[in-house]
Amino acid sequence: MTYGYTGTIIRVNLSDQTIKKEPLNMKNASEYVGARGLGTKYYCDECDPKCDPLGPDNKLIFMTGPLTGTCATSAGRYNAVAKSPLTGTIGAANSGGHFGPELKYAGYDGIIFEGVSENPVYLYINDDVVELRDASHLWGKDVYETTDLLNEEVGEDFRIACIAPTGENGCLFAGIMNDKHRAAGRGGMGTVMGVKKLKAVAVKGTGSVRVARPEGFFKAATDARATLKAHPVTGAGLSAYGTQILVNIINASGAMPKNNGRDGSVFADADDISGETLTAKYLIRNKGCFGCSIGCGRVTDIKDGQFKSKGEGPEYEAGWSFGADCGVNDLAAVCNANFLCNQYGIDPITMGATIACAMELYEMGAIPEEDIGFPLRFGDAEAVVKCTEMTCKGEGFGKIMGLGSYRMAEKYGHPELSMSVKKQEMPAYDGRAIQGIGLEYATSNRGGCHVRGYVISPEVLGIPEKTDPLVTEGKPALLKTFQDLTALVDASGICLFTTFGIGLPEVAAQYREAVGSDESDEEILLKGERIWNLEKQFNIAAGVEKDTLPPRLLREKLPEGPAQGKVNDLYTMLAEYYKARGWDEEGIPTKEKLKELKL
Amino acid sequence: MTYGYTGTIIRVNLSDQTIKKEPLNMKNASEYVGARGLGTKYYCDECDPKCDPLGPDNKLIFMTGPLTGTCATSAGRYNAVAKSPLTGTIGAANSGGHFGPELKYAGYDGIIFEGVSENPVYLYINDDVVELRDASHLWGKDVYETTDLLNEEVGEDFRIACIAPTGENGCLFAGIMNDKHRAAGRGGMGTVMGVKKLKAVAVKGTGSVRVARPEGFFKAATDARATLKAHPVTGAGLSAYGTQILVNIINASGAMPKNNGRDGSVFADADDISGETLTAKYLIRNKGCFGCSIGCGRVTDIKDGQFKSKGEGPEYEAGWSFGADCGVNDLAAVCNANFLCNQYGIDPITMGATIACAMELYEMGAIPEEDIGFPLRFGDAEAVVKCTEMTCKGEGFGKIMGLGSYRMAEKYGHPELSMSVKKQEMPAYDGRAIQGIGLEYATSNRGGCHVRGYVISPEVLGIPEKTDPLVTEGKPALLKTFQDLTALVDASGICLFTTFGIGLPEVAAQYREAVGSDESDEEILLKGERIWNLEKQFNIAAGVEKDTLPPRLLREKLPEGPAQGKVNDLYTMLAEYYKARGWDEEGIPTKEKLKELKL
Repeated sequence: MTYGYTGTIIRVNLSDQTIKKEPLNMKNASEYVGARGLGTKYYCDECDPKCDPLGPDNKLIFMTGPLTGTCATSAGRYNAVAKSPLTGTIGAANSGGHFGPELKYAGYDGIIFEGVSENPVYLYINDDVVELRDASHLWGKDVYETTDLLNEEVGEDFRIACIAPTGENGCLFAGIMNDKHRAAGRGGMGTVMGVKKLKAVAVKGTGSVRVARPEGFFKAATDARATLKAHPVTGAGLSAYGTQILVNIINASGAMPKNNGRDGSVFADADDISGETLTAKYLIRNKGCFGCSIGCGRVTDIKDGQFKSKGEGPEYEAGWSFGADCGVNDLAAVCNANFLCNQYGIDPITMGATIACAMELYEMGAIPEEDIGFPLRFGDAEAVVKCTEMTCKGEGFGKIMGLGSYRMAEKYGHPELSMSVKKQEMPAYDGRAIQGIGLEYATSNRGGCHVRGYVISPEVLGIPEKTDPLVTEGKPALLKTFQDLTALVDASGICLFTTFGIGLPEVAAQYREAVGSDESDEEILLKGERIWNLEKQFNIAAGVEKDTLPPRLLREKLPEGPAQGKVNDLYTMLAEYYKARGWDEEGIPTKEKLKELKL
Repeated sequence: MTYGYTGTIIRVNLSDQTIKKEPLNMKNASEYVGARGLGTKYYCDECDPKCDPLGPDNKLIFMTGPLTGTCATSAGRYNAVAKSPLTGTIGAANSGGHFGPELKYAGYDGIIFEGVSENPVYLYINDDVVELRDASHLWGKDVYETTDLLNEEVGEDFRIACIAPTGENGCLFAGIMNDKHRAAGRGGMGTVMGVKKLKAVAVKGTGSVRVARPEGFFKAATDARATLKAHPVTGAGLSAYGTQILVNIINASGAMPKNNGRDGSVFADADDISGETLTAKYLIRNKGCFGCSIGCGRVTDIKDGQFKSKGEGPEYEAGWSFGADCGVNDLAAVCNANFLCNQYGIDPITMGATIACAMELYEMGAIPEEDIGFPLRFGDAEAVVKCTEMTCKGEGFGKIMGLGSYRMAEKYGHPELSMSVKKQEMPAYDGRAIQGIGLEYATSNRGGCHVRGYVISPEVLGIPEKTDPLVTEGKPALLKTFQDLTALVDASGICLFTTFGIGLPEVAAQYREAVGSDESDEEILLKGERIWNLEKQFNIAAGVEKDTLPPRLLREKLPEGPAQGKVNDLYTMLAEYYKARGWDEEGIPTKEKLKELKL
């Protein structure tokens, strides 16, 4: 009897179209928890870190956590794990909605996809029945079309995860979309799915998840939910305004990169693209994932004008990438570009930041106009939507943008103008104005990313305690704790956003009661550190580039705002950080550290 | 009967150790003149542009020009041509001394080396006798030892071109050294020689070079020599002070990069490392190559102190690279480092600029001290000599520096801090203070280089006419003319330095009389343009990166001096330049242009 876990995974060999069910490796589950952690462990045990992410040897793993599908706080998450075609790092992308819980209800903790199918297929899971089915009729369809067609074919009560044509046509930052609007978005997990000719997974389950100590678990979950409800961010702010609430806050900190970061990080028109404006002008209602008490999702409708469209979002990150980062203050255009990303299954952070990079390259003369087909200047809302559409459809210059900003900028001779780390675009916080987030980008195990140790919480929001964003002292140790806790939270199957309101004690308590563990909070946090070090080990073996930041953040001083004159003091922090991690001066985990973590 | 040319080349297959003599392709000789041009033509006709420069398919071609070995002005040059291991571009490195003329006196315009020898060999050429001989006893010896041992073995009257251990041990910027102190220095032609296990070429010739119209030729040469003699630069300046005369001149223009260019381009201690100081403190005498009336070479002796040593040089470029670029004002240390480069056969521009780059990376914290073994700060003269020695001997961190600044900086996460173009280090003139030279670096067909169109002549020295170095207007067309003329001069076999005093009319006149041509000056200059376009075509086919400059030159404004506040306005010039060349917006030669040039 397993608790928290179903105890079974599905192994699908797409090359020979065979399907096996096998018991979950419980030792690994105990050590790596689940989802991001356990999926990565399976990946690392089975795959060569040097494998071609676009080749047949890259596996794709869907993995839930022990809390996924339970009544723990916001426990609707699963992770897709593969070597990332965008970064070459271990890729693990996290998504909410209802797909993950449904997979567990069908009786499976995860699915391992191996090899490459000759023809397009989808995986059909109806409790015990697991089959590969032809998906030729779905190939080339977008996320909405695919989901609707599949629901028509297999039943309305199936949960669908799928890719759009971006995952089929060489775009390196295609995501896996589930429940239409939820995304395992970053690093190109959808690209890997496309290489495998795996169009979708449709799942329906009628079972449930057993927890070890039901009474204790219910109390831990209820207490944690009460804490979330009482917190101003998770109890009110996020449900009222969504993540776009951050626009004015981050801009007031002088930390919202404008025009690809070229012109600093204060966007005069921030309020035009803020959560408050979104709510006033376009919001229909909010929306939550499985079992979520926060409900940060946005259902939005642009009822008229040039950018008439409807959909979900945008998140703060997309609001920034299509907005401030492109110098655009037209919220309708921002929403429209974001809807396209959902419909065509691509990561809107990378998309917007790639357009911003193209704009800078165009304005300096490095990209000739004939390559793009039209002028591409900062502030041009129409061009932003057009570029997004071209990339979604793989047309013209969209093919080049579909490679991400790094490869595009490299093609035009200026890789340093890609605002990326390890070839993945950094999100909406300027590491010059917020020192710790710069360190976070540099050290993130999946390249530029904000959800691998979101120190914006202490540095700007004051959660759990306010720190000075312009100071470097203390940030390395703070970041390490955030990274380890995040890895644990991601692995458990609950949503990272819960940690605005709850911390290690509440996460650990829910985990203990669900799986039946008597480990201390610290022992449980150590699993997060283990996951982090495993990911790092993979990246070293894969030959991923060193931890660093784009030169702009290290040498171009911010021209205005609260952080005027600042650059990111990375290397001072990095030396401290490696020490805090028990790694050597080059950032390689020492033998002692690996032994301590049983790696 | 051939004039100017001997009409015969040697083809050596090192894999099967066979030697053939074959007639020179006179059509190609007529179209591509000789040396750099003709060597490149042979190379392009016979080799795959995508070949591995460190593999057996890369050929190495020694080629002289029709004026080499004649009494034309400073006509002692030959070129070594191969695909460059440093840049991946076509590599053509030019050297003076006596080796080139001696090869022609032996009866050969050039040598084509194919394949790879199993064991170390040298090529012995004594007029008609051409043999491969065992060089096991020479492997591992430096330039001086190798030359002395060979002269002992084959005779004092042989001219020797050879490599040192840098060419044998993976350093990517090893040169071919001839007559001990003359170097085909840039781009790693010595590295290619090492891969082939070809240690040296020893040549003795007792023949002569026939010219078509002896009387006309003698008059043309004599007139040109008189012009050189009468010119202040070629008649007095260069022989009195060597190229180091430039230190104070370039520094006064605010164009001498200091501390890897990080701290601008005005070096307060410039006079300490100037040609005037060199002459006063360490010069023994000047020295000329074969048939040269200028004699810019320096024989120098540091008689005492920590850096006691003797040798030849430094040139201005090495004086800058080990001096201002490393923040070093100790001329004895600069000379010592330069002597080491001669003895160990490496390019001192790349060497010094790589140390400067390492210094910046160290000071910012990107290279940990344990990797280097000691602190490496700007201004540390002892460290500069130590780094040079480590690289020469392939020891410790020297192995990494031996890959050049680009690969080193990339390893440490900051390729943009390599002050290089196409992975080859830019020399001693800041493209922010002298706009045209920035365009020249960006468009040079062998990566960062000053002798592919030395517009310092007009922009600073006023030759033939003074232009404003801060202005971009007119520079693209000016540069094109300089590039084409330089290609012609290099191909002819005379020294580029003659063009401080003479121009196209004198060069063309000597060429016409030597080979017996009745082509106009313009028709002859067109051969230079043809060579330039051939090189460009090769680079495009090889997949070489786009024409650009390090971000520092495009975005970091000069902090002081006559060019304060300036960056290089590259892309404005580049668009004009491509137009002037008859290329498309991406810098690809158009069909019309290629047809015009019979390419």
